[in-house]
Amino acid sequence: MGKRKLETCFSPALYEPELHTDEVVVIIDILRATSAICTAFANGAASIIPVAEINEARDYKNRGFLVAAERDGFVLDFADFGNSPFNFTRDKVEGKTIVYSTTNGTGIINMASKASDIIIGSFLNISALAGWLTKQEKNVVLFCAGWKNRFNLEDTLCAGAIAEQLMKSNQYQTICDSTLAALDLWSFAKEDLTGYIEKVAQRTRLRDKGLDDCINFCLTTDTTNKVPSIKNGILVSIIS
Amino acid sequence: MGKRKLETCFSPALYEPELHTDEVVVIIDILRATSAICTAFANGAASIIPVAEINEARDYKNRGFLVAAERDGFVLDFADFGNSPFNFTRDKVEGKTIVYSTTNGTGIINMASKASDIIIGSFLNISALAGWLTKQEKNVVLFCAGWKNRFNLEDTLCAGAIAEQLMKSNQYQTICDSTLAALDLWSFAKEDLTGYIEKVAQRTRLRDKGLDDCINFCLTTDTTNKVPSIKNGILVSIIS
Repeated sequence: MGKRKLETCFSPALYEPELHTDEVVVIIDILRATSAICTAFANGAASIIPVAEINEARDYKNRGFLVAAERDGFVLDFADFGNSPFNFTRDKVEGKTIVYSTTNGTGIINMASKASDIIIGSFLNISALAGWLTKQEKNVVLFCAGWKNRFNLEDTLCAGAIAEQLMKSNQYQTICDSTLAALDLWSFAKEDLTGYIEKVAQRTRLRDKGLDDCINFCLTTDTTNKVPSIKNGILVSIIS
Repeated sequence: MGKRKLETCFSPALYEPELHTDEVVVIIDILRATSAICTAFANGAASIIPVAEINEARDYKNRGFLVAAERDGFVLDFADFGNSPFNFTRDKVEGKTIVYSTTNGTGIINMASKASDIIIGSFLNISALAGWLTKQEKNVVLFCAGWKNRFNLEDTLCAGAIAEQLMKSNQYQTICDSTLAALDLWSFAKEDLTGYIEKVAQRTRLRDKGLDDCINFCLTTDTTNKVPSIKNGILVSIIS
């Protein structure tokens, strides 16, 4: 095939599922869901079951599963922990199946269900992810989770960083303004990513809730070569 | 009051009317609707009646009005002309009321109808616009029309340029990631705006339709001090 198409979507409110059948969708929600998922697999988790409803997560807990569940950053009372990547330590998750319920995550996975593949992206697995993508003969959509349907900078910067790696491979082309903007914002921010992230809205929100301790970790590149992917509704790692 | 709030919305699909009651909404659709409107007033138009439906525009034409009407860039057959700013010459529009029907424009004006004020922004009137805004004791939303509900770069850059002027006035604050992104993209593009615009998707679309002759004109700053505003459903100039 010729060059593959690369597109970026800045918010669930802008996602058009019918345009992306038979393409690979990369879900990006770096503060903190997709960073937590990558960390779980890096630390040996066997699989992650995403669930939408709180009651469903509670049922799994009652049946003995390890449950990570949060709403707006706060841990639900019955859950083992929330969605800080620091929770998903090797001693807790190795070999385990984790049930995971987040504010946005499951809805986004459902929206993307017509895609050929759904994979999980973050800075933590960025090179493994880009390497896997370039081996697929498929168009790619970088799907930023945003915040309450709004554009956010941190997911856009991660999309720009992924786009940069893909464009360098010379296998992709883009005429998508969102991708071009993400690439330029990334080129602007990358020399001092930690400093740049200081100004983003989610940084302030997490600080206000005392949940900002993991931000620098979430901005670290290539701590893992795992690429989590949805298979039959469950997240597994497709690179081990 | 303290510093006023400055926000940016990248697409009609992201606009939340209930958040912006009692604020000033600046509508930005520089290729080509808002540039055409600013040019009409620069050339002495008395007022512009925005209409949504083609049949409504045709009725106005039959009643003797001057009618500008387009869909996807193409002039409707009964109309006097379409939405290239080059159509709105002084000999055609001076002293006239123009009926104007565009692909997106009326829908966006209706979406913003709960706002305190709705004004029309482009590079052509940017300093007059920013000057007017700073005299209002109101929060501001820069509302980019986008393209078919998607993010676009050209409206984002104009939003960034307006935001730069407002932030320099030291009367505004923003914690809106979209505004921060627009500011950074503008700072990235402004040294060679014409060159930067070469890559945006709408540039290619207009070129493919032979409608790109007005792009450089639409990127020109401060050709007019008119600030078009909606009053009782009709566009008039609030600075003459």
